Amino acid sequence: MDIREYAQISKKASVLLASLSGSDKNFALIMISERLQSNSDKIFSANKLDIQNSEKNGVEAPILKRLKFDQKKLDEVIEGINSLIKLEEPVGKELKVTELDSDLILHKVSCPIGVIGVIFESRPDALVQISALCLKSGNACLLKGGSEALETNKALAKIIYEASVLAGAPEGWMHLLETREDVREMLSCDDAIDLLIPRGSNEFVRYIMDNTKIPVMGHADGICHCYVDKFADLEMAVKVVTDSKTQYVAVCNATETLLVHEAISKAFLPMIQTSLEEKNVKIYGCEKTREIIAVEATTTDSFGTEYLDFEISIKVVSDIDEAIQHINTFGSGHTDVIITSDLKRAETFMVLVDSGNVFLNCSSRFSDGFRYGFGAEVGISTSKIHARGPVGLEGLLIYKYKLFGKGQIVADYSDGKSKFTHRDISNQS
Amino acid sequence: MDIREYAQISKKASVLLASLSGSDKNFALIMISERLQSNSDKIFSANKLDIQNSEKNGVEAPILKRLKFDQKKLDEVIEGINSLIKLEEPVGKELKVTELDSDLILHKVSCPIGVIGVIFESRPDALVQISALCLKSGNACLLKGGSEALETNKALAKIIYEASVLAGAPEGWMHLLETREDVREMLSCDDAIDLLIPRGSNEFVRYIMDNTKIPVMGHADGICHCYVDKFADLEMAVKVVTDSKTQYVAVCNATETLLVHEAISKAFLPMIQTSLEEKNVKIYGCEKTREIIAVEATTTDSFGTEYLDFEISIKVVSDIDEAIQHINTFGSGHTDVIITSDLKRAETFMVLVDSGNVFLNCSSRFSDGFRYGFGAEVGISTSKIHARGPVGLEGLLIYKYKLFGKGQIVADYSDGKSKFTHRDISNQS
Repeated sequence: MDIREYAQISKKASVLLASLSGSDKNFALIMISERLQSNSDKIFSANKLDIQNSEKNGVEAPILKRLKFDQKKLDEVIEGINSLIKLEEPVGKELKVTELDSDLILHKVSCPIGVIGVIFESRPDALVQISALCLKSGNACLLKGGSEALETNKALAKIIYEASVLAGAPEGWMHLLETREDVREMLSCDDAIDLLIPRGSNEFVRYIMDNTKIPVMGHADGICHCYVDKFADLEMAVKVVTDSKTQYVAVCNATETLLVHEAISKAFLPMIQTSLEEKNVKIYGCEKTREIIAVEATTTDSFGTEYLDFEISIKVVSDIDEAIQHINTFGSGHTDVIITSDLKRAETFMVLVDSGNVFLNCSSRFSDGFRYGFGAEVGISTSKIHARGPVGLEGLLIYKYKLFGKGQIVADYSDGKSKFTHRDISNQS
Repeated sequence: MDIREYAQISKKASVLLASLSGSDKNFALIMISERLQSNSDKIFSANKLDIQNSEKNGVEAPILKRLKFDQKKLDEVIEGINSLIKLEEPVGKELKVTELDSDLILHKVSCPIGVIGVIFESRPDALVQISALCLKSGNACLLKGGSEALETNKALAKIIYEASVLAGAPEGWMHLLETREDVREMLSCDDAIDLLIPRGSNEFVRYIMDNTKIPVMGHADGICHCYVDKFADLEMAVKVVTDSKTQYVAVCNATETLLVHEAISKAFLPMIQTSLEEKNVKIYGCEKTREIIAVEATTTDSFGTEYLDFEISIKVVSDIDEAIQHINTFGSGHTDVIITSDLKRAETFMVLVDSGNVFLNCSSRFSDGFRYGFGAEVGISTSKIHARGPVGLEGLLIYKYKLFGKGQIVADYSDGKSKFTHRDISNQS
């Protein structure tokens, strides 16, 4: 079968999946969790095969580490499924109830989006998390994992699919794609797939965004900034900037550019230089920066670069407006931080910086679904519609309107025979 | 200046517009309303020119009618602006407040999307409505109206823009496009425009959707269905189906296909034939329909056709599942109605039919922002993300996360030195 057919099957399954009750879905999640445990040997031996193949192919150590799926990883994903089971049922929530007229009642009700295509990195635990999230939210899914993890993903997908269908999930609700060619084909299935969530490198996400008509939720770049204002507590600024840059460098919410207000630059730059160089961060500075500390010069590309490494660009700005404008020009709308003790200036920054996450006096690394308390994270979105910033389960939901009448027709309202009442009765039922 | 430059100017203006207070925006709306009134002569004479040109060019009567902008239309749009002024300020709403830890508070706050491109039909009143909606929601906009209304639109846009800027709106927040070439150029400005809202004919909307990477909100087709179940009150069904088809045929929420349960087809089809033919509706029927009433045969295309006219397709189905499957195959996800007195069957239909609006025992023509009580309508969306069904002001909004800290760093939480509390404190401030 080709991917277009699988996509159509998913579309049909998605309708049935949308009608499953919360307890049905939780039962399926329990079955999945049990089957993953009782079939752990199959998963681990598939994973060994992947690791052997990857070693043979000279795959680098960090990827090998992420690829590993052992008892600890299994325990973690099962804990994740258990916390999903405890979450409130997200489908069928009454978001608003309006009386349009007596006996003509409009309900706005949450429902799944439909069919989600998710393309994720080499960690096989992502497959478990994502399929469980899709099931909980009632969405059918087409999944594609990293090619290094193919055997592990096949073993996991088989267990999850069979357990869920046995528990009552509709056949065809989930399908694992195996090749890059499959992904390319999936990008053209805009008649069946409602949303794509690509997770992975910049270039990869950008490739997806540029080659499909299906809406894409995610982020390509994560060029995050810290701006140290002239009213900053400089010791706090050192702490926050150092954490934002170095706590974990390979991720989208790590800071890539430091903006420093001119008025405190002479005091602050030597302080931050000491702290960053202690962590082996390589610093590139603008001309004004280099008048104060001895660092390499930034190039024309520096401020558009996502290092994802122990490197940072520094620019001295003459006021907060220049900082805001720099961020809105070179940033990626991900996460930007101001360090100041002036709340009014903080508010200006947080309104005018056009990013999904704007922080005062804390690390950019807090920009994350788990740290935000979402329980589960679908991804981080830098787009401006549907969902923005870290996205939890609600990013996989939309709503429909259900109107309950007793024979009403529009002609009576346009003739003036009947009149709309338009009363919000959301809290009365 | 070319459109790319205007788009960049809009992007800059959108940041400032996002920071205007509710009272600033309402003041601008009052100024607009006053200036429209005091400059009515300029608007009416521009409109006369458009009508003369259109008559010369042999434009059809219905378009000429929609093109007309007189005192009555002016009063209507001013009433619309006044009701917008009264609406609650949509920007800056606290959607959720979470304590991540003591003194680390996360606010989810509503904000404008940014820059909206709206392409609308020949009614010049649409320009006033849309620009006022964008202003109230804090979005910059690029507008393109029907070419027949160019002079009227130019007059209206000039008055609205000048009045709003005088009242404090940022320069460049609104721009009128004049040619189709402009629209084509706008479609490529995905670095500056965040959302496109095309309103108009199917082919036109589909052209937009197929030729841009900017997210599009709207609907191409409106293939709406009425399904008359075997437990329907047949007199009610006649009334509702007739209104759904004939109350106003040229619109997306008019019904195009009637599905009839076999068990009541012999009783119902002659009744609905009489009622529809009284309104001069031409009926096309499937084979089973034509065994009961004498009508023309449907073709292979009938069930995918949006007539927008006094025409309807009828199909006899053997059960509710066939009806649901027909709708999910041939429908456009717009509005679909079940007529039944069995609430359980209604619920099945309303969950399984994958449309933005699913109705029980009332006309499909109720599917409309004004009838839903939204006060203002941006359009109707058949997409599955961001906004679905009739879209009010909230379709022009998104949110951002503001995190207020006191120097917290992530290292302390990953070391276990600090712990997240994740308390929902939305109703405490």
